[in-house]
Amino acid sequence: MHGSKTPDSRLVAFGGGRLDRVDHVRSNPLLLAEAFASPLARRIVLEGLEPVVEGGHLVMEPLPGDAWIEHHALLGVDEDQRPIFAELLAEAPDSFFATPRSRALASEVPGHEVALYGTARSLLAWHARHRFCSMCGQRTAPSKAGWSRKCGSCEAEHFPRVDPVVIMLAEHRGRVLLGRQHSWPAGRYSALAGFVEPGETLEEAVVREIREEAGVATHSVRYVTSQPWPFPSSLMIACTAEADDDALKVDENEIEHAFWCDEAGVRAAMAGEEDAPFLAPPPMAVAWHLLRHWLDRRTAG
Amino acid sequence: MHGSKTPDSRLVAFGGGRLDRVDHVRSNPLLLAEAFASPLARRIVLEGLEPVVEGGHLVMEPLPGDAWIEHHALLGVDEDQRPIFAELLAEAPDSFFATPRSRALASEVPGHEVALYGTARSLLAWHARHRFCSMCGQRTAPSKAGWSRKCGSCEAEHFPRVDPVVIMLAEHRGRVLLGRQHSWPAGRYSALAGFVEPGETLEEAVVREIREEAGVATHSVRYVTSQPWPFPSSLMIACTAEADDDALKVDENEIEHAFWCDEAGVRAAMAGEEDAPFLAPPPMAVAWHLLRHWLDRRTAG
Repeated sequence: MHGSKTPDSRLVAFGGGRLDRVDHVRSNPLLLAEAFASPLARRIVLEGLEPVVEGGHLVMEPLPGDAWIEHHALLGVDEDQRPIFAELLAEAPDSFFATPRSRALASEVPGHEVALYGTARSLLAWHARHRFCSMCGQRTAPSKAGWSRKCGSCEAEHFPRVDPVVIMLAEHRGRVLLGRQHSWPAGRYSALAGFVEPGETLEEAVVREIREEAGVATHSVRYVTSQPWPFPSSLMIACTAEADDDALKVDENEIEHAFWCDEAGVRAAMAGEEDAPFLAPPPMAVAWHLLRHWLDRRTAG
Repeated sequence: MHGSKTPDSRLVAFGGGRLDRVDHVRSNPLLLAEAFASPLARRIVLEGLEPVVEGGHLVMEPLPGDAWIEHHALLGVDEDQRPIFAELLAEAPDSFFATPRSRALASEVPGHEVALYGTARSLLAWHARHRFCSMCGQRTAPSKAGWSRKCGSCEAEHFPRVDPVVIMLAEHRGRVLLGRQHSWPAGRYSALAGFVEPGETLEEAVVREIREEAGVATHSVRYVTSQPWPFPSSLMIACTAEADDDALKVDENEIEHAFWCDEAGVRAAMAGEEDAPFLAPPPMAVAWHLLRHWLDRRTAG
């Protein structure tokens, strides 16, 4: 667990939230109204889905007197017993993907505030994309303190999406498989990744994705760590796998290039050395932790 | 990995699929039409979402001459190079949850056929629940060989849901925490479980759920295994965690009862003994594997 005793350098960005999610309050209109009316209640200040930072912290504000409880999601209660809300967006944002501003947050505020922002961002993006019922096409309305939406017509209840994504390092004789997407900055390489599909285990998704993207057969999948990635709603599940051999057959629709990198190359990249064979992913990405884990294990082993 | 060399007793039900999901065919109308027109092509026979079994196998049939490609999802290509399809449902089924007939399948056909059925069931259930666009309320139509739906009005693309669920055994001094839901058969106890929420890691979801349901603080979460659970679209992620102490404070809205069970009690339950302290979950449930794993580790340690 990434608890308060873990130094921030080891904390996976968007993990380490400290709110008590108070599930029992969500479904209890009396407790919810009490939390909303509390003088301690705060809401996170956002511009659309973007964070607002002042003095090294997310900006929070008291709930205005004319705020509607129906337009707010209860994110949880913080360590000072303050109920923390987020206002649902009146209009859908242009994009749900990561922006320079939202990416920068991880180096601007404490880790637990990054997690709070990530939760708000994921939840608000989900509401913005689910104003209508996928079963009957009629309007839905927020329910359970923003943790579900109900259809006024067919009464279907809909819950926030969390999309599991596997992200993994295949290993072969002391080297790891790295790939780059067409859109990435020059020199950047990272772990391969892809969405888990219906009807497969995590381990099967890892093997399928490595085979699809790089043509490499793998086995012995091991789980390493996980990360919520709120752009808009991924759950990154980081693994390693062992490759049968090192022959590559890259699917160029999926990735631009892939190569096997040795330990010295990964060390140079993670240290940010100029002559490193690739530009490492940033520490806010779980791929950075995966590479770190691989290096640590080689040192230990 | 649960590959063909793994004995079935160790295979997690609904895992172990052997289809090549041929992602490159899904987005290529020419290759897709070729697969659909192939004399080798088959489709899984279902009654609604229910499986049809004959002679110890799922029933497959050739595609009828008047079948529409737009009404079929391509599940993949099997080991005999047969493209395997599933016909989308014309009407939404009454329920998306597990039935006695779908539960029985795991003991009726080979494991890889259970996985094929699970994939079909999850995918068809998702289509049936997503005929309308959640962004604008207009009709959507299947796309990418049944692996997405596109809105004809706002052009939003929607992808099948996979909902990660954590299921876990808390341990304390040689005992594990078991709970039962109100609706379960008399005597049945199993691991606690709950959906992963936006903005939390898997490890944080495990700690939150155990605290919410049983009032127990835990740490040192460890991943054990995973299972697709197609009722309708869960991905079960099985873990262990270590409890700080054994005081229980059960949330009776969530579970009916919980208790700490020692190793002898778990062994008796897993062996199906009459005087066991609880009725174990069936082998098709990942909780069975979690209990098995816990016993094996105690034997090994």
